[in-house]
Amino acid sequence: MTHLDLVKTLHEPNETKIVLVVADGLGGLPLQPGGRTELETANTPHLDQAAREGVCGLSIPVLPGIAPGSGPGHLALFGYDPLEYQIGRGILEALGIGFAIGPNDIAVRGNFCTVDAQGRIIDRRAGRPSTERCVELVNKLRQIRIPGVEIFVEPVREHRFVLVLRGEGLGDEVNDTDPQQEGVPPLRAVGRPGSERTAELVNQFVERAATLLRSEAPTNMITLRGFSRHPKIPTMQEIYGLKPVALAVYPMYKGLARLVGMDVVDGLKSLDDQLAALEQHWGQYDFFFLHYKYTDSTGEDGNFEAKVKAIENLDQAVPRIRALKPDVLIVTGDHSTPSKLRSHSWHPVPTLLVADTCRPDAVSAFGESACLHGGLGLFPAKYLMLLALAHARRLAKFGA
Amino acid sequence: MTHLDLVKTLHEPNETKIVLVVADGLGGLPLQPGGRTELETANTPHLDQAAREGVCGLSIPVLPGIAPGSGPGHLALFGYDPLEYQIGRGILEALGIGFAIGPNDIAVRGNFCTVDAQGRIIDRRAGRPSTERCVELVNKLRQIRIPGVEIFVEPVREHRFVLVLRGEGLGDEVNDTDPQQEGVPPLRAVGRPGSERTAELVNQFVERAATLLRSEAPTNMITLRGFSRHPKIPTMQEIYGLKPVALAVYPMYKGLARLVGMDVVDGLKSLDDQLAALEQHWGQYDFFFLHYKYTDSTGEDGNFEAKVKAIENLDQAVPRIRALKPDVLIVTGDHSTPSKLRSHSWHPVPTLLVADTCRPDAVSAFGESACLHGGLGLFPAKYLMLLALAHARRLAKFGA
Repeated sequence: MTHLDLVKTLHEPNETKIVLVVADGLGGLPLQPGGRTELETANTPHLDQAAREGVCGLSIPVLPGIAPGSGPGHLALFGYDPLEYQIGRGILEALGIGFAIGPNDIAVRGNFCTVDAQGRIIDRRAGRPSTERCVELVNKLRQIRIPGVEIFVEPVREHRFVLVLRGEGLGDEVNDTDPQQEGVPPLRAVGRPGSERTAELVNQFVERAATLLRSEAPTNMITLRGFSRHPKIPTMQEIYGLKPVALAVYPMYKGLARLVGMDVVDGLKSLDDQLAALEQHWGQYDFFFLHYKYTDSTGEDGNFEAKVKAIENLDQAVPRIRALKPDVLIVTGDHSTPSKLRSHSWHPVPTLLVADTCRPDAVSAFGESACLHGGLGLFPAKYLMLLALAHARRLAKFGA
Repeated sequence: MTHLDLVKTLHEPNETKIVLVVADGLGGLPLQPGGRTELETANTPHLDQAAREGVCGLSIPVLPGIAPGSGPGHLALFGYDPLEYQIGRGILEALGIGFAIGPNDIAVRGNFCTVDAQGRIIDRRAGRPSTERCVELVNKLRQIRIPGVEIFVEPVREHRFVLVLRGEGLGDEVNDTDPQQEGVPPLRAVGRPGSERTAELVNQFVERAATLLRSEAPTNMITLRGFSRHPKIPTMQEIYGLKPVALAVYPMYKGLARLVGMDVVDGLKSLDDQLAALEQHWGQYDFFFLHYKYTDSTGEDGNFEAKVKAIENLDQAVPRIRALKPDVLIVTGDHSTPSKLRSHSWHPVPTLLVADTCRPDAVSAFGESACLHGGLGLFPAKYLMLLALAHARRLAKFGA
């Protein structure tokens, strides 16, 4: 029995409200040995106050040592075991551009690449064309029609696009056509049982694309990676009995939220918009996922100071959230993004939970070192939702 | 999906080097309530310095409360779930004496015992004969020839020896002939499907042995336990993409290292030899397993002071290891061996990891109580290799 099987049998309705604030890539590292992390450097009086009132800890998104992408990082926070529920690269790319993936769709990520006269790949990213050029080339590919399947080609940026095949009887058991090396031609798509026709359609698409792009060097060919379909994930309504809504600015996080059954408020452009939407929809939902991007993007830029500032901006939003008196407020991240590493990392993520049922711990400021001594300890992120529901008094006793 | 399935898809090559120092049985207990453990008593300036620079924690070799043998303890450190990968008693005994087990071999541990005139066991250990006597008796048993199978009999010590059957079509699904009680005769070997012939060969061997030993009372019979073959374990090369080497003095640890695909440097007699080999082979490998025995043997002797001294001797080796500038240095144990208990124990094992990607914790000395507050927390030993690879920057992000 998994923890989701269990919680499905235990949840019970009430009027409580839970707010989950995900500061993307929140955890960090000091730049110098013995120094402070971004979060420890930032002036965060409101988060520190919440840490004093609540209980803190450090979450492990997937497993010790594993740096997650946004997909597994968020699924874990929503309570799903990220090793059990994996999201294909094609689907994630489609979610990332806000493409509305349907149940019969097969999505795959495409790259424009450069091939020589013999058809061998000489640049897997086609010299990284501009995004404008990407849009032009995608418009060319949109001419392709293949009987029996509906085709969508969507630009992402630079050399990247998304291809979606929609139709009955398609399968995602198709190999990548990207050989992941140069000096060899792209691979032919081959379908495992149930996906043979899909592979055939893909090969037709690639041939037509090659013809259309022939004179477009260096963007004169395409490769495809990560054929995947909408994963079968039980919704948060089913598992938790919650009515959840996502307040996110970026398409990827809205897509991930839709994947687990959340409603999504569209048109939000800033944290202010998100807070206004939180206030506006407070009566309609009982679970609010608020995604804050800038702690991650500044970390990926390697900009320690900007990440500190992004954290301080988030801190300023805390009073407005707490003014709504959520029964449970959680502030955490989907993974760490230390500016020192300029990338997602495996380091555990500082997490705080405030409710009136918290047992006191000695944590008096929200930061990595302090959280190590918090009452939540080091814990798998996939269990955070159980704690949220428990403190929201939404879980019955297990067993008599 | 297990953590090994995952890591197999994520590892990527680079030039980093990882050193895993296993101080066997490192963890301890104070002799008096409120006192210090062996590690806390020892003067370990170099380990303390490493603890300050790195991150510390306590590893749980198998599960809370479970005291592991050397096999499961080391498998966990090498990243294998010790409940999934179990090494039969016969194989472990053969590894322990340095016998080169082949893929078609069935190994089993033998005991000399004493039987009365009716063939009933009256001493399961035959009065613990001397090891010299064990060698004489084994030489007698080596006369036994059985058509269709190659037989090896090897002394271990006192009443213990190893029997290895080599040939095509053998099976290890054979019951122990040791009834584990006195007053009854040894059991006949019975083979489950696929192992019937093996059981028949074993019964022939035992009958011949009984005849040869008839006049050798009290060592006038044998019992056999733990029929087993070389387990199928994926190698560290396959799982981690590492080129690993073992620097160990004792056969058991060399055998365990070979089992998971490590190269083994032979002929090492002391810690000095091991350090010299580490330096000599530094360019050829990227993972170095250095096994230090004396923390365990002194603990098993119940000699607190000697264990303290053994730890201090290891501490003196740390600068020579760090002079090589490993990207990741780990110092841990395969289990605890408190001198107070004179045996392996279940207590979590102090662990330190030094790399330039460690998040600071407050640990300023390497010891059990201090490690409890370290950034690694209390963690399953099987995840240590994930952390090693992460800090060696050898793992790609999981999911997009």
